[in-house]
Amino acid sequence: MYHIVLDAMGGDNAPEINIEGAMLAVEAYPIKVTLCGVETELKEALKAYPDSPHDKIDIHNATEVVGMAESPTMSFRKKKDSSIQVGLRLVKEGKADAFVSAGNTGAVMTTALFGLGRLDGVERPVLASVFPSSKKHFVLMDVGSSVDCKPSHLVQFAIMGNLFSNAILGVETPRVGLYNIGEEPDKGNQLTQATYKLLKGSDMNFIGNVEGKDLTTGKADVVVCDGFVGNSLLKFGEGISKMFTKFFKEEAKTSLLSLIGLMFLKPAFKRFKKKYDYDTYGGAHLLGVNGICIVAHGSAGPVAIKNAIKTAFRGLESNMVSVIGDAISSSDLIEEEK
Amino acid sequence: MYHIVLDAMGGDNAPEINIEGAMLAVEAYPIKVTLCGVETELKEALKAYPDSPHDKIDIHNATEVVGMAESPTMSFRKKKDSSIQVGLRLVKEGKADAFVSAGNTGAVMTTALFGLGRLDGVERPVLASVFPSSKKHFVLMDVGSSVDCKPSHLVQFAIMGNLFSNAILGVETPRVGLYNIGEEPDKGNQLTQATYKLLKGSDMNFIGNVEGKDLTTGKADVVVCDGFVGNSLLKFGEGISKMFTKFFKEEAKTSLLSLIGLMFLKPAFKRFKKKYDYDTYGGAHLLGVNGICIVAHGSAGPVAIKNAIKTAFRGLESNMVSVIGDAISSSDLIEEEK
Repeated sequence: MYHIVLDAMGGDNAPEINIEGAMLAVEAYPIKVTLCGVETELKEALKAYPDSPHDKIDIHNATEVVGMAESPTMSFRKKKDSSIQVGLRLVKEGKADAFVSAGNTGAVMTTALFGLGRLDGVERPVLASVFPSSKKHFVLMDVGSSVDCKPSHLVQFAIMGNLFSNAILGVETPRVGLYNIGEEPDKGNQLTQATYKLLKGSDMNFIGNVEGKDLTTGKADVVVCDGFVGNSLLKFGEGISKMFTKFFKEEAKTSLLSLIGLMFLKPAFKRFKKKYDYDTYGGAHLLGVNGICIVAHGSAGPVAIKNAIKTAFRGLESNMVSVIGDAISSSDLIEEEK
Repeated sequence: MYHIVLDAMGGDNAPEINIEGAMLAVEAYPIKVTLCGVETELKEALKAYPDSPHDKIDIHNATEVVGMAESPTMSFRKKKDSSIQVGLRLVKEGKADAFVSAGNTGAVMTTALFGLGRLDGVERPVLASVFPSSKKHFVLMDVGSSVDCKPSHLVQFAIMGNLFSNAILGVETPRVGLYNIGEEPDKGNQLTQATYKLLKGSDMNFIGNVEGKDLTTGKADVVVCDGFVGNSLLKFGEGISKMFTKFFKEEAKTSLLSLIGLMFLKPAFKRFKKKYDYDTYGGAHLLGVNGICIVAHGSAGPVAIKNAIKTAFRGLESNMVSVIGDAISSSDLIEEEK
């Protein structure tokens, strides 16, 4: 049975939401979950679940908490007993198999990078996030781990994304696309122009450049970009969704017609949310480090936490870390680039 | 009376839509419009408008047409008599005051850059696009003219955006933001970190970093980023809108409840479209070149063409070119950067 550590203190609604998510996860998958955080607080919170499965959920004490807005490097240096550092240490020391957090993304990434370390041959870790589209979902690499990239980094992102899409999302031969601002090979900036040539020469199923408008139509299974661009797309997408929701909420207040219309559309909006909500896909996977580490959204609800744990479980089942390690170390494309 | 040249052959629905847009524009503003394109074709198309105001609309012959997917540099070298080159030449030679095109954006930008030339001191031209937000609209600089940028380029974008927001959008003291993937000054990539420091030291009303989620809430009046990121946001925004429309169109086909709901919501969707449609804001303004040049969306309808012409008119009225020239040449911030 896999043993997953959940950062019980991370996220906007910790620890209650985290505990609820853990409960859902241990019911759904053959796993054990350790809640890592302030013991007294967690013991108190667990009292609300007198029937909790004690054999599948336990607590590991960590006396410090990293705030959502704290500096990742500062917290890494100063808070050695935070739920993030203690949790990742359990994985590093082989006492647990994977780590999941809805806490400070930067702090989790920094700690994972220095705590777990990079896999041999990996130049930069990459935060892989599953995105919805009108057809099927796809994985965007990177969404914020590595913001200043070289072409060889993006090629490694593609290699890792290719394996992730295959192993975790079940795509047999993933279509790998390069995120760009035009279709033709010579479009884009220096980074994408150089990366295009490298990907073209790889043995992956490279389908060429993919534009912003193609992301939502499911043209590719893996889309590669630097972390600045990927994070921008992620956050702008969230912003547009919120703008849209806000508009119709205000409409419902000021127009009777709209209020009636929205009532009829309630099931449709639910279907829309289910299909397009990022939470459905359960957090971003930090690939390229020596262990499984999943970062969920700070505002994650119980289902999103459960799904983030599921992502960790799938990563363990498919032996993601070794698979990536093997692929990167046998990739001569990268050697040429060095 | 200002004299504006419209590329009559540019866009997905040229020349009919372009002519309709020109008709709307000459009715609305004290301007004369020259339709630049294949004379025989335009004369034929104008027959559909027997009552067209001949004193305010005329034709200037250009025998070649640049396709929407043609290489900008190739077409620039080979098609010397295209509607884009001929139209911009009229402006360059002082025979017209401004140029508007819904054609191949890259070709228009290349021709404007080489044809009109950069203003003294401007390092890179910038394509300024007005974006909707839930509060007021703002201008995003750059949306695709300069994709590999240095900090000094972004500072010039900010200076030009500041003037544009004031003169064209009527904002007294524009709030200038730096597009970034985090709020704190040290967030982002090397480009944004270095640009932050320069903007902080400028005499503009710099409000710091602005994230993707802030774009839709109207936090800033001017948002500065490199052309790769800006173009990505523009196209991804379009993609999401299309994904959304598609979802509800399909809902209406498969669910009676949704169909009824959507019927009630029709006025709300119209209001939504009016508020958030990029077309309302009439094309992107190429700033930093020695003349007024507006690029409309390839799929622009008559109203979008009219609004693009309006944008050119406003640029002329506010003497945008000289205002920018003066500001850039007196900017010591840039001198320090060189």
